[in-house]
Amino acid sequence: QNPIVLIAGPCVIEDPERTLAIGRSIKEIAGRLQIPYIFKASYDKANRSSYNSFRGPGLKEGLSILAHIKKELQVPVVSDIHCVTQIEAAAEVLDILQIPAFLCRQTDLVYEAGRTGKAVNVKKGQFLAPLDMKNVIAKLEEAGNRNILLTERGATFGYNNLVVDFRSLPIMRSLGYPVVFDATHSVQLPGGAGTSSSGQREFVPYLTRAAVAAGVDMLFMEVHDNPPEGKSDAANMLYVDKLEALLQDVIAIDNAVRKHK
Amino acid sequence: QNPIVLIAGPCVIEDPERTLAIGRSIKEIAGRLQIPYIFKASYDKANRSSYNSFRGPGLKEGLSILAHIKKELQVPVVSDIHCVTQIEAAAEVLDILQIPAFLCRQTDLVYEAGRTGKAVNVKKGQFLAPLDMKNVIAKLEEAGNRNILLTERGATFGYNNLVVDFRSLPIMRSLGYPVVFDATHSVQLPGGAGTSSSGQREFVPYLTRAAVAAGVDMLFMEVHDNPPEGKSDAANMLYVDKLEALLQDVIAIDNAVRKHK
Amino acid sequence: QNPIVLIAGPCVIEDPERTLAIGRSIKEIAGRLQIPYIFKASYDKANRSSYNSFRGPGLKEGLSILAHIKKELQVPVVSDIHCVTQIEAAAEVLDILQIPAFLCRQTDLVYEAGRTGKAVNVKKGQFLAPLDMKNVIAKLEEAGNRNILLTERGATFGYNNLVVDFRSLPIMRSLGYPVVFDATHSVQLPGGAGTSSSGQREFVPYLTRAAVAAGVDMLFMEVHDNPPEGKSDAANMLYVDKLEALLQDVIAIDNAVRKHK
Amino acid sequence: QNPIVLIAGPCVIEDPERTLAIGRSIKEIAGRLQIPYIFKASYDKANRSSYNSFRGPGLKEGLSILAHIKKELQVPVVSDIHCVTQIEAAAEVLDILQIPAFLCRQTDLVYEAGRTGKAVNVKKGQFLAPLDMKNVIAKLEEAGNRNILLTERGATFGYNNLVVDFRSLPIMRSLGYPVVFDATHSVQLPGGAGTSSSGQREFVPYLTRAAVAAGVDMLFMEVHDNPPEGKSDAANMLYVDKLEALLQDVIAIDNAVRKHK
Repeated sequence: QNPIVLIAGPCVIEDPERTLAIGRSIKEIAGRLQIPYIFKASYDKANRSSYNSFRGPGLKEGLSILAHIKKELQVPVVSDIHCVTQIEAAAEVLDILQIPAFLCRQTDLVYEAGRTGKAVNVKKGQFLAPLDMKNVIAKLEEAGNRNILLTERGATFGYNNLVVDFRSLPIMRSLGYPVVFDATHSVQLPGGAGTSSSGQREFVPYLTRAAVAAGVDMLFMEVHDNPPEGKSDAANMLYVDKLEALLQDVIAIDNAVRKHK
Repeated sequence: QNPIVLIAGPCVIEDPERTLAIGRSIKEIAGRLQIPYIFKASYDKANRSSYNSFRGPGLKEGLSILAHIKKELQVPVVSDIHCVTQIEAAAEVLDILQIPAFLCRQTDLVYEAGRTGKAVNVKKGQFLAPLDMKNVIAKLEEAGNRNILLTERGATFGYNNLVVDFRSLPIMRSLGYPVVFDATHSVQLPGGAGTSSSGQREFVPYLTRAAVAAGVDMLFMEVHDNPPEGKSDAANMLYVDKLEALLQDVIAIDNAVRKHK
Repeated sequence: QNPIVLIAGPCVIEDPERTLAIGRSIKEIAGRLQIPYIFKASYDKANRSSYNSFRGPGLKEGLSILAHIKKELQVPVVSDIHCVTQIEAAAEVLDILQIPAFLCRQTDLVYEAGRTGKAVNVKKGQFLAPLDMKNVIAKLEEAGNRNILLTERGATFGYNNLVVDFRSLPIMRSLGYPVVFDATHSVQLPGGAGTSSSGQREFVPYLTRAAVAAGVDMLFMEVHDNPPEGKSDAANMLYVDKLEALLQDVIAIDNAVRKHK
Repeated sequence: QNPIVLIAGPCVIEDPERTLAIGRSIKEIAGRLQIPYIFKASYDKANRSSYNSFRGPGLKEGLSILAHIKKELQVPVVSDIHCVTQIEAAAEVLDILQIPAFLCRQTDLVYEAGRTGKAVNVKKGQFLAPLDMKNVIAKLEEAGNRNILLTERGATFGYNNLVVDFRSLPIMRSLGYPVVFDATHSVQLPGGAGTSSSGQREFVPYLTRAAVAAGVDMLFMEVHDNPPEGKSDAANMLYVDKLEALLQDVIAIDNAVRKHK
């Protein structure tokens, strides 16, 4: 087994069959490369730029689809939670509860997610200094949870743009928990398309390779069989047929730098 | 009546008597200056940096205290809502439902707040371009609500710092709704004190005067009789005994520029 | 005399007659408003985005034109210097030597400008924290010069954008020297037009009023009778026929806040 | 020969013997690793924060020392030029003329450097978008020079901080010229020590590895046998005895990603 874990899937659950098919394609690739794989898709995009954007099937149906995918693929699943009221149901299905970046400072959401005992992946807010994730960690530890992941997904850089500060990876790893690099949200251009976010898919491979070289424990990527058809993050998801070559780079780079971890 | 409205009060409801007394002091000042006054205090600080920070009396007791203050002072009241489940109870007491900056993209919270028919004050996220507030407005209008306020409270500027881009005031006013300048959160230094935010109270008067000159409809200020004793935002709240002189400047400047509104 | 001083003129010396005529128009306006006036135009735009952009008449001819304008209008003149070799000639004509923002850290240029005994106006670099201007001041004081002006002209804010942090005005005034607000370069969009900078002229009045309310000693504005025809900064220069109304606002606001200086 | 070129040396020429000795140490390391090596040291630090900081031996003596080092080590040498008047003398000794970041928009300096026919390395200004380097390139091409290097050394990120946006590497490479990553200036904290810049040496290896993985042609590093004794950039220079291990990582990573160049 390669040590870098892959969290991947389409941004949002669209058609259940297509969603499962994407997960199956990723699983096959990860299997060939001996990379541990965790399936990700959102049951609800709760913070779309626009009211009329597609949000997904919702909590109940979405968790049911995720449970089906988990059983079919025999892989762990992760999804975003947005509200304390979703946690109990979500924790019955999900292996990892994910705190969206905008919500990383919401004490109750973080604490109650922690209380489930499930792994919790907190995305660092676009407005937060890397070192300030120590306070988020303290909320989870207060809940008795040390099964924590910290995700870099870009920092606010002027308007409608993000920048990845790769100093954040060693800073967050120094806090004692595994660090995830979210390669596809890091290239979002927030609000860049007027009524939705745009993105720069072309930079995903560069930032992924840079992140692995700087040292990460996991990669997070939104992947789709045909991203321009995707109902969310169409401009920044990775084509599934580009994934294997990129992961081969990841393994080669990680082999070169793993001794520093 | 002067046309600029003042939203003010302590950051969080502390002791009910002291909270009321602060409101009463502000009301007297606003009354002398003929400035319409809306009381503000939070019943719950839901996104403190640190788990162990003071959060306030909570929804039920807090709304009861706010109802009491509203009746005693005979002024409208505004407070933050953080979760859809709080909206029904909050709308029974509050005149304005306020969406915190970190939550300005949460579709359900914004939409359901809008559905109450109450005025909704949305704080622009530190991560959001001013023009992108048009999408937030669209969510409220979709809920049939045109009773909207838009608040500037600073934009992310590197780490642990905010900057107020005063272009945001005319940009947001061009969207067709009144614009509020939050003078005390705009001088926060997020995470600047390690386990809490710090602030630069000394710049509140400068930014307040600049905002009025650039053109705003309302001012939002957290005010305390002894800010260093405050249980939240101690470093950036304004001393109540500095308020009157500052508001006199506000009136004089607004008189000079009102014709441009 | 009103206490706020105006530095104004076209960005670059174009046709000498037209340049003089613009200065004459501004002088008349300033005279009517009893505002002290200093003429500004560049003899050389030494850092245009593009090689083929218009640069002006150059040092020798430019200084000659500036000397003529100074005599005709009977006003002090200021212009940018870019190189130590220009200082001697420039100091014979100019009343104020201006250090461009990109060059504010060039020790020899600053020091030698200081050694002339002329007033020196240093534009704060887009990359510099306001407090760091203390080190620039120290270089001038080392040269025996205390005739110093400090100019705010916006700070780098992501790519192709600037933001004015109005905290910089009180911070720089606390360093003991008069502070100038450059209202027209502050709305530049650097590189925003591909091979040249673009700009947002529409925000000049808002930022000017905000700056005066926050407290400044002088205003700097590039003004043209027909800015779109201007050979530099066409997108951000102010129309000369908009100047008088704006300066009336400036006086009214300054009257309201002058006691804080 | 490995394809990645190393530009390295102490920030500023201090004692000539020590400076040569540092170069010799680096040359031995580069030789063992079959990495082409170019010596770098500044003859004049022309933009120190503080007037009284050490600046180096100056143009004449400095070029003489660089000529000696070039002859002793039999390697090309590069150094900063700050003024058109330095170019002729500098071009007689230097193999690469380097344009400092603050000066990357000075048309005459760039153009006249280009006219020498020497290679010109332009450091991207901290205030410049990566794509805007196309305009700098156009100035050099106008001078008939296509022997161009483009260097990333961090972008302004709030106050007293820089961030490396690794999207800049593929963006600048797409402009058709080799790209250099300046690993040690990228971790400067400008003005971070009050009267001088501070730095974060501890992040140099992380950013170096990330840059190579993202794809660069050359690495630029300031290296010293005892950085805290260094007379400039003491906080961010690399210890020479850490260099070899880091370059071994560089080779391993570059081997893994070279096919993408």
